[in-house]
Amino acid sequence: MTKKVAIIGAGPSGLAQLRAFQSAAAKGEAIPEVVCFEKQDDWGGLWNYSWRTGLDEYGEPVHCSMYRYLWSNGPKEGLEFADYTFDEHFGRPIASYPPRAVLFDYIKGRVEKADVRKWIKFRHTCRRVEYNEATARFRVVVHDLVNDKEVVGDYDDVVCATGHFSTPNVPYFQGFETYQGRVLHAHDFRDALEFKDKDILIIGTSYSAEDIGSQCWKYGCKSVTVSHRTAPIGFDWPDNWKEVPLLQKVEGKTATFKDGSTADVDAIILCTGYLHHFPFMADDLKLRTANRLATADLYKGVAYINNPKLFYLGMQDQWYTFNMFDAQAWWARDVILGKIDLPDQAAMIADVEDRIQREDAGETAYDAIRYQGDYVRELVAETDYPEFDIEAANEAFFQWKKHKGESIMGFRDNGYVSPMTGTKAPPHHTPWVDALDDSLEAYLKTT
Amino acid sequence: MTKKVAIIGAGPSGLAQLRAFQSAAAKGEAIPEVVCFEKQDDWGGLWNYSWRTGLDEYGEPVHCSMYRYLWSNGPKEGLEFADYTFDEHFGRPIASYPPRAVLFDYIKGRVEKADVRKWIKFRHTCRRVEYNEATARFRVVVHDLVNDKEVVGDYDDVVCATGHFSTPNVPYFQGFETYQGRVLHAHDFRDALEFKDKDILIIGTSYSAEDIGSQCWKYGCKSVTVSHRTAPIGFDWPDNWKEVPLLQKVEGKTATFKDGSTADVDAIILCTGYLHHFPFMADDLKLRTANRLATADLYKGVAYINNPKLFYLGMQDQWYTFNMFDAQAWWARDVILGKIDLPDQAAMIADVEDRIQREDAGETAYDAIRYQGDYVRELVAETDYPEFDIEAANEAFFQWKKHKGESIMGFRDNGYVSPMTGTKAPPHHTPWVDALDDSLEAYLKTT
Repeated sequence: MTKKVAIIGAGPSGLAQLRAFQSAAAKGEAIPEVVCFEKQDDWGGLWNYSWRTGLDEYGEPVHCSMYRYLWSNGPKEGLEFADYTFDEHFGRPIASYPPRAVLFDYIKGRVEKADVRKWIKFRHTCRRVEYNEATARFRVVVHDLVNDKEVVGDYDDVVCATGHFSTPNVPYFQGFETYQGRVLHAHDFRDALEFKDKDILIIGTSYSAEDIGSQCWKYGCKSVTVSHRTAPIGFDWPDNWKEVPLLQKVEGKTATFKDGSTADVDAIILCTGYLHHFPFMADDLKLRTANRLATADLYKGVAYINNPKLFYLGMQDQWYTFNMFDAQAWWARDVILGKIDLPDQAAMIADVEDRIQREDAGETAYDAIRYQGDYVRELVAETDYPEFDIEAANEAFFQWKKHKGESIMGFRDNGYVSPMTGTKAPPHHTPWVDALDDSLEAYLKTT
Repeated sequence: MTKKVAIIGAGPSGLAQLRAFQSAAAKGEAIPEVVCFEKQDDWGGLWNYSWRTGLDEYGEPVHCSMYRYLWSNGPKEGLEFADYTFDEHFGRPIASYPPRAVLFDYIKGRVEKADVRKWIKFRHTCRRVEYNEATARFRVVVHDLVNDKEVVGDYDDVVCATGHFSTPNVPYFQGFETYQGRVLHAHDFRDALEFKDKDILIIGTSYSAEDIGSQCWKYGCKSVTVSHRTAPIGFDWPDNWKEVPLLQKVEGKTATFKDGSTADVDAIILCTGYLHHFPFMADDLKLRTANRLATADLYKGVAYINNPKLFYLGMQDQWYTFNMFDAQAWWARDVILGKIDLPDQAAMIADVEDRIQREDAGETAYDAIRYQGDYVRELVAETDYPEFDIEAANEAFFQWKKHKGESIMGFRDNGYVSPMTGTKAPPHHTPWVDALDDSLEAYLKTT
C-alpha cells in the first residue's frame, strides 16, 4: 500500500475517517499513509469550544459555532458511536442530553483509545486542493500557521471533512447599517449572559433560533421575539416570548414586521443558517449543494461524482450525526482500500437522483428521520462498521420530537434507550431549566 | 505593450495604482492591460463602510474595520491627493477632520473623474497567486463570488493592495473563555450606541484605543478603562476615564490589572492592532514584515525583493496615507513601464537595511513624521506625480499632535493649511463633541 490520503479537518467526520483507517490497520489490513490537517489547535471540530469570534489569532475564520451553556439539542441515543458506546466511555449510564463538554469528552475518548492523534497536523489550514490529471493525484497546499510555512504534497485521495455549520449565512435587512443595537449571527453568539435583561430579536426558526432563544431566556433576557419567513415554530413558549412574521426594517432600535407590528430590541441574532463553503477547493472539486438530506453530486452521499477520489463527509442536513459520519468514513475507507468498487458515472448520477426523489417524496419530519436512518443502514451494511439498531435510534428521534412538543424547556429532562447497548438513560440530577453550570464535572456528579 | 498587470484590491492603494496607469495613458503612453480584483461590492477599501462583522454574505472575511460616527483622526491636509485637491472636489475649503463619508466621497471623486471603474472586477476575491518560473509570469486564481466561478489568469506583474488593517490581532487573556460580557476586537466595533451606559475596558494604547474610547465616551458610555502594556496614553481624559496597567485576568465580569486594581466591565474591546495577512500568496511571494515605517523585504518600500515584479502598496505603518500610496503607485507603474530600472538584489537588500537603520535612528514621533515625509518626497521625485509641499504636510501632522496634547476631545476643532493649495481649512460649524450626525450632508451644510 503506497497510497497517500489527505483528510481535511479533525472534527467528528475527520476523526471518524481516522478511526476507520486505524480500525482496518488493527485488523491487519494494509492502509495508506494518512495525514489529517486541522486548522484549530485541538481536535473535535465544532465541539472544540472557542471564545473567539470572527477571525482567530492567525487571521483564519473561527470554526466554532457553539456557545457557552450549550446542551445537546437532540438525544445522545441518536448519535452514539456503534464502536464506542456512552456506557463504555463513562463507565455507567448517563442522561440523554449532555452539555457540550460531555460530548466533547466522549468524542475524544474514542480517538484517544484508537491512538490516532499522531496522524493529525494541528494548526495547518488548507489553502488549495487541485487535481492534476497528468499524475492522477491531488496537489494539496496547506499553511502551517505556527511556523508560517507552506506545506505542499501530492495525494491519491482526499477526504474533505470540514463541516458545513461554520460559515454563516448572513442576510441583510433594511436599516441594518444604521441600527443602534448589535447585529450578530448565531455563529458569533457565545454567552447568553451578554443578553441578560435585554430585548432580543431572533431571525429564523430552525435549531439555532430555538436553542439560542431558549438559552437567552434561561439566563435572564427580558424578552425574546422570533421572526419567521414562513411559519412560526409554534412551541408553547414562555410568557416573555412571542413569534412574529418576517422583519421588514429597523430604525433606531425599532424593528417592524410584515404584519405591521413593531418591537424595540437591543440585539438582533440572525439564526439564518450556514453556507457550504470550500474556499480551498479548485472549481472542479467544489461541492455545491443545498443543505438537505440528499446532497447534490455525491454518490452514496460521499464520493464526489466529478472526481470520486475525492470524498465529502457529513455534508448532509442532519438528524443522524456521529454514527452517520462513521458509516460514511468506513465506506470511503473501503473505496480507497479497493474493497468497494464504484460504478460508472452514469450510475452514480442516477444514485444521486434517486436519493433526491426519495427524500422529496417524504412529507414529515418522521419520514426524514426514517430516510436518513435507512441511509445509514445502507452504508453500514457495505462495510464492517458494527451494525446497530437503527429503529431504536429512529425511535429516540421520534420521542425527542414528541417531548419537544410537550415542553420546549423541559424536553431535555427525558431519557431514551441506547440503540447500541439497550441501556435506558437515567434522568439528569437537575432539570435543564435549573442547571446553570454546564461543566463536565457538574453534569457527571452523582452526589 | 502586451503586458498584463493584476491589482489586488480597490481601496486607496489599488485605486492609486489605477489612477497612476490612467494618468500615463492620458498623456499618450502605452500602458499594460490592467485588471483590478476587489472582494467587496464597491471601491474604497476600508472607507467602504459595512455593518457586517466576521464573515460576509459570501463567507469571506469582512474587510471593514471602520465604524459609525468615525471622523478622521488625523488632519486631511496630511493625506490630500496632489493631483486632486479637496478644494477641487468640494468646490470650497472644508474643515480638517472630516467624517468617513466625506473622505469616501473625496476618494471616489478622483477615480470617477479618471474613469477607472471599468478596470475593476468587483466581488472577485483572490484565492491564490503563484509565480511560474518557466513562463516568468504569475498565475492568479480569483473567485468570482456572485457567479461562484473561478477565474484563472497569467500576469506579468502583480500589485498587492489589500491593506493591512483588516485582519485583527487578537490576544488571549486569562479568563476570556468564561468572561460574562462581550469580548470583541476593534475590527468588529461598529456602533458606539451599543455601549451606551456600559462600562467598557479597552486593551491597547494606539489610535483604535484612543478613538473607540472617545467614540464610546461621546455617545454616552458609563466609563472607559484603558489598559496598557508599557505606558498610559496620557492625554487629559474626561472624568469617567482611567488608564490602568495590563490586564491579568477576568473572572465573571471583573477584570484584574497588573497593579492589583480591578474593574467590573460589560465589554472588553481589544485595540491590539492588525496582522499583515496574505492567505492567497504562495510562500515565496508572501510579505512578512512588522508594522513599521521601513518594511522588511520591499525595495523602496514597494518592490518585493525576492520577486520584484510583485509590488506591495501601503504596507508601512502610516502617518502619510493617500498621497504616500500615490507616490508608491506612480513609482510601481514606472517600474512596470520600464521607466525606472531596478538595481541588483544586493543593492535592493542594502536599500531596505538602510531604511530600517534610518527609521531606528529616529527617537520621536516628529522624527518618524519627517522620515516618512522624506520617503514620500523621494518616491515623488522619481515619477511625474505632482510634487507637493512635504514640509507643509509635516507641519499639519506636528500641529495635530500638539492639538491632541492640548485637548483630546477638542483637537478636531482645529484647521490646517493645505500642502497642495495653501488654503487654510475653516473651522467646522459644530465642535466635534457636539456633532453626533456624521453624514456627508450634515458635515457639508453651510446654513
